[in-house]
Amino acid sequence: ESVVPPCGACKFLRRKCSGGCIFAPYFGTDQGAASFAAVHKVFGASNVSKLLSSISTNHRHEAAATIFYEAQARLSDPVYGCVSTIIALQQ
Amino acid sequence: ESVVPPCGACKFLRRKCSGGCIFAPYFGTDQGAASFAAVHKVFGASNVSKLLSSISTNHRHEAAATIFYEAQARLSDPVYGCVSTIIALQQ
Repeated sequence: ESVVPPCGACKFLRRKCSGGCIFAPYFGTDQGAASFAAVHKVFGASNVSKLLSSISTNHRHEAAATIFYEAQARLSDPVYGCVSTIIALQQ
Repeated sequence: ESVVPPCGACKFLRRKCSGGCIFAPYFGTDQGAASFAAVHKVFGASNVSKLLSSISTNHRHEAAATIFYEAQARLSDPVYGCVSTIIALQQ
């Protein structure tokens, strides 16, 4: 077995990162842990894992990006999240 | 002790609904269970409970509404969620 650094998600979750890790392609080793912390706090690792699994591989990058966007928005604006952007754009 | 029907969230979670239930004001007995099912699937009960607790009482209605909006959007569009609305409005 070769030792591979865990992806950002597994680093954050302090677990082993397997070859087939669903998070690895979207949460890199370096900055991925910080991104995943936000996603984890808002959605939870299990929900994001289920969501990504339900999406075809070629759309998972976009899904991970929009999930991260929503998570960041909710952390900076707990009441409105990214809905504040929608309201602002509609006006 | 009087028997009170559980709120929609507790009905969905099949648990007792206490007087201080954090979900009760935002997930009514009748349609609340369906709304909460969406919120639960996307965010998870525990994350939503923590989020609502962190917000002052007078802003929780808006928070519950935007969380429900995001959850619905993510279930109908798993890849983009409500970010699809933001992208459409920006164009």
